[in-house]
Amino acid sequence: MLHDPNDVAPFVVDWRRQWRGDCLAVVQPDTAVDVCEVVRWCAANSISIVAQGGNTGLSGGATPAPGSRSVVLSTTRLRSVREVDSVNNTITVDAGCTLLDVQEAARAVGRLFPLSLAAEGTCTIGGNLATNAGGTAVLRYGTARELCLGLEVVTASGELWDGLRGLRKDNTGYDLKDLFIGSEGTLGIITGAVLRLFPRPSDSQVALVAVRSIGDALTLFGRLSESLGESLVACEVLNSSCVELVHAHSTTRSPFHPETPWVVLVEAVAMRADGYVRASLDEAFAAALADDLLIDVVVAESVGQIGRFWALRENVSEAQGAAGPTIKHDIAVPISRIERFVAEADAAVRSKFPAVRFVTFGHLGDGNLHYNFSPQPGSDLSDFLNSQNELNTLVHDVVRAHRGSISAEHGLGVLRRDEADRYRSEVERSLQQAVKQALDPMGIMNPGKVLPG
Amino acid sequence: MLHDPNDVAPFVVDWRRQWRGDCLAVVQPDTAVDVCEVVRWCAANSISIVAQGGNTGLSGGATPAPGSRSVVLSTTRLRSVREVDSVNNTITVDAGCTLLDVQEAARAVGRLFPLSLAAEGTCTIGGNLATNAGGTAVLRYGTARELCLGLEVVTASGELWDGLRGLRKDNTGYDLKDLFIGSEGTLGIITGAVLRLFPRPSDSQVALVAVRSIGDALTLFGRLSESLGESLVACEVLNSSCVELVHAHSTTRSPFHPETPWVVLVEAVAMRADGYVRASLDEAFAAALADDLLIDVVVAESVGQIGRFWALRENVSEAQGAAGPTIKHDIAVPISRIERFVAEADAAVRSKFPAVRFVTFGHLGDGNLHYNFSPQPGSDLSDFLNSQNELNTLVHDVVRAHRGSISAEHGLGVLRRDEADRYRSEVERSLQQAVKQALDPMGIMNPGKVLPG
Repeated sequence: MLHDPNDVAPFVVDWRRQWRGDCLAVVQPDTAVDVCEVVRWCAANSISIVAQGGNTGLSGGATPAPGSRSVVLSTTRLRSVREVDSVNNTITVDAGCTLLDVQEAARAVGRLFPLSLAAEGTCTIGGNLATNAGGTAVLRYGTARELCLGLEVVTASGELWDGLRGLRKDNTGYDLKDLFIGSEGTLGIITGAVLRLFPRPSDSQVALVAVRSIGDALTLFGRLSESLGESLVACEVLNSSCVELVHAHSTTRSPFHPETPWVVLVEAVAMRADGYVRASLDEAFAAALADDLLIDVVVAESVGQIGRFWALRENVSEAQGAAGPTIKHDIAVPISRIERFVAEADAAVRSKFPAVRFVTFGHLGDGNLHYNFSPQPGSDLSDFLNSQNELNTLVHDVVRAHRGSISAEHGLGVLRRDEADRYRSEVERSLQQAVKQALDPMGIMNPGKVLPG
Repeated sequence: MLHDPNDVAPFVVDWRRQWRGDCLAVVQPDTAVDVCEVVRWCAANSISIVAQGGNTGLSGGATPAPGSRSVVLSTTRLRSVREVDSVNNTITVDAGCTLLDVQEAARAVGRLFPLSLAAEGTCTIGGNLATNAGGTAVLRYGTARELCLGLEVVTASGELWDGLRGLRKDNTGYDLKDLFIGSEGTLGIITGAVLRLFPRPSDSQVALVAVRSIGDALTLFGRLSESLGESLVACEVLNSSCVELVHAHSTTRSPFHPETPWVVLVEAVAMRADGYVRASLDEAFAAALADDLLIDVVVAESVGQIGRFWALRENVSEAQGAAGPTIKHDIAVPISRIERFVAEADAAVRSKFPAVRFVTFGHLGDGNLHYNFSPQPGSDLSDFLNSQNELNTLVHDVVRAHRGSISAEHGLGVLRRDEADRYRSEVERSLQQAVKQALDPMGIMNPGKVLPG
């Protein structure tokens, strides 16, 4: 148990240093049974518990509140791979395994665990499940939720629920697993999971495509989806500001002119390396060129080039951060509404905040955009930062009008907690509260996260 | 509203005539708002509500209890397709649409709704979601749960929850949708849903394979899964008794000798009709033949032959019913445990009930077997029927030993309610009850189903 302020310090602030809090102590249990004991002791003493994995979250969900009577429960010592079953295509792991641990254990038996995101060397699988993480392969493989077959959870009363089932089909009661997934430690603490594994594709093709508009990007995605189906792993998009920021703050280069309005990254895979995917892509791109749907396209010819193409997409967040303050949104709308969403949100923001720079990128194929803003070079930074709340509301009202989500893959934490509650219907609010009350009647599990306190 | 006993009769018995009950009336609302009014009136008068779709369930989940003070709420008049969005690849439907209605509305815009099961002309999508139905394409597309993005539900207090989101990513609170899916009308009544659509594959290949053992069938499945990946739609299995029953009670014929120990049906698809899938299958079958893993294989050469191959699998249930009384199990185990499960369960049953005939078939690729029994020809029928409970326990104890499920795709209803509860841990029981209490505090939603009353 850690008490010393210096030891506790890294656990009471998130990695982006957006939220700071206090706790009575940090505990680092070695087993799920120890987690039960901690929770039971806390319950008996009316002390709340903030579960924390790799502490890489973006919404403040793993940071205790300032002045809180809480214990931070770090899961990072729960780090065993319990079982790999390459026949059932499942892996059973402790919640504190990093995402990379899981990927590597899968690779060691010739299998793929497809969840992949920037923090994978540090974030834990327990945190990925607690926030239902997305990442770069959702189009083909789904979010963390779809990749999980079973859970082990310590309940709010400190009991161990063994739901570690490795089954594709099981209808023997209410779906407790999916209730804990995405609940950010507010209903219980995930200590273990059974995850799905997949055969590793033998062939992977990655292309960058230059297009004139997000509408053209969407038309291209629709065509690729029809011709490639589940072979399509990713269809990502970034606007010219993203490319300019990456050029300014990294050594990564786009193969196109930096002012190209939009760049689309496409990845497709196949189980056989027989040219099937490449032929499908070439055919789709040739037709799109003939229809004037794209400006240019480059298909990666080597593993190194695949890495460089992905770097262009993956370096956007860091480049935007390096360029100065950032106002972020993690929104999703139906794919059929993306073009209208971007047009309407752009117009609304531009008319009110002409000094804002649009840094729009994300997972086009999932309908999930990181619809971010930076200040225009030379504009007033405090004006920009003061406009944050108003910009959030402007953008989220457009999201709402298109029946979208204001938190697609980053979770609510404290960042989007109140906004999400504001957009909720009264019926949904009471259902959400009934669930919380049922599973955590004392309100000791990560209080003040997900739902308003 | 129907009161007359003759009008009410079809609604108070399940289609297999295993359960009969009573109700005060049958209501057939035309809109979700009418459903709200019915539920509010029932809540105010302490009358319970049994939601019923096409009444094709196998576990008695939609039949009111004998002597019950309940209203049967039939959803079959809620039958509009509200919206088809071929860009977002979603369809929004009323709960009372038949599964076939949904499939046909998808086909009309060149899309596939892949859920498919024997009752599809009669069963409703609301019932499919309420029971989390499986069917014949789970391997590639998942169960009803995975095919649903959003729900509209009338809560136990008669309020309408609009959760009709057509999003691939949404993390804005606890996962209410997955709580209602599979809850068999005990937490609320599903009145509408947003479902996922898929591009229609251009190529489909179906093969029947004769193998000597379920172990060989599993080895073959593992190889096909590695070489075909997500192209594999189905890997079904049936033992020789199934083939003999189908031969005796239908005009469908196996291409192999009827005493072939096991027949495997494989279906694989691709987005391009360029021979890719056929080449992969031919290659895998040639290697399996060379390794003496299979006795014989036939790949369908026409759409008609595909239909006949599938008929062999799909006629098993009906043929078994036509042959006399049946004792059924709908179990799932990890795929790595199937061979041991079958060996151990066969041995346990054979030693205690030598007059029992094993009718084993099901969804091998999902780990889901319909591990059924018929009486041996000439054996005592009442002995057979009297052994039902003991046989259930024998089989389900083996399932439990392999961390399996005693209800993979048919739901608990009343049939498996008490058995499921017996195998539940105390922790899980209290979590299940807490959920029920939270969402249906008066206990008026389909009481006595899923959980013991």
